[in-house]
Amino acid sequence: MSMSEEHIQDLWPDEGSLCWGCGKNNKHGLQLKSHWEDDETVAMWEPKEYHMAFPGVLNGGIIATLIDCHGTGTANAAAHKATGDASMHFMHVTSGISVKYLRPTPMDKPVTIRARVTEMNDDKIKVACELYSGDTKCATGEVHTVRVDTGRFLNT
Amino acid sequence: MSMSEEHIQDLWPDEGSLCWGCGKNNKHGLQLKSHWEDDETVAMWEPKEYHMAFPGVLNGGIIATLIDCHGTGTANAAAHKATGDASMHFMHVTSGISVKYLRPTPMDKPVTIRARVTEMNDDKIKVACELYSGDTKCATGEVHTVRVDTGRFLNT
Repeated sequence: MSMSEEHIQDLWPDEGSLCWGCGKNNKHGLQLKSHWEDDETVAMWEPKEYHMAFPGVLNGGIIATLIDCHGTGTANAAAHKATGDASMHFMHVTSGISVKYLRPTPMDKPVTIRARVTEMNDDKIKVACELYSGDTKCATGEVHTVRVDTGRFLNT
Repeated sequence: MSMSEEHIQDLWPDEGSLCWGCGKNNKHGLQLKSHWEDDETVAMWEPKEYHMAFPGVLNGGIIATLIDCHGTGTANAAAHKATGDASMHFMHVTSGISVKYLRPTPMDKPVTIRARVTEMNDDKIKVACELYSGDTKCATGEVHTVRVDTGRFLNT
């Protein structure tokens, strides 16, 4: 297995790292970090006690956020991988997301999110995600992303 | 127009009011509050400065959370309305959600979420939501909910 120690989100400019879901510079946020394992991306994330829906059960909006951010992170990284040109700076944002909640997700251990690119079509990339608690699949999601001009959202 | 001053989420038991998205007893959460206006439910919510995707742009996971919680709140309230029996205690949770992001949602003013029940079928209720910034529709969503035994998630 080829596993990268490098976090996808750590490659972004500072101004692009303020996202509440995955920005390392957002101290109030979830600070999701994703990495490649072969042609899959993986993120592990540990809930805080207040990220609940009900006592002991992880909130569905938090799950959607994790899937969204892991999905756009994956699309972004896949777009760069496809060019093989490290000087290119692409930015993918979410145009749509769907999540299916298969069972309650426990709060007492980290969740793992795994994703694969399922479609790459010019400026549109679709990503399929699965969220696990241990070995139990608790949610699945699809993230539709679209490439935007970096300058539309960032000054950098 | 018939508008209720009563917040849907304020009718829930304390233990059911811990949700990160809409629980009044979750001090770290978004504390969404919804009310009826005729056959529509409406919630207004004001972002904090760290709920961003990019500077000035509201996070998509936050938007999904608002739509999710407003959707289940609406389903829950509609189920109670349909019985006309105030002693019944129903609980609807999300089995699936889809959100379309139509344009960036600004951070500098509150957002308004409006919803209607589109399908009521035994224990399943679907809710269609729209999220506005001022008069501008920025996102739409569909929330699929399913009724569960209250005792599955709460001790009350």
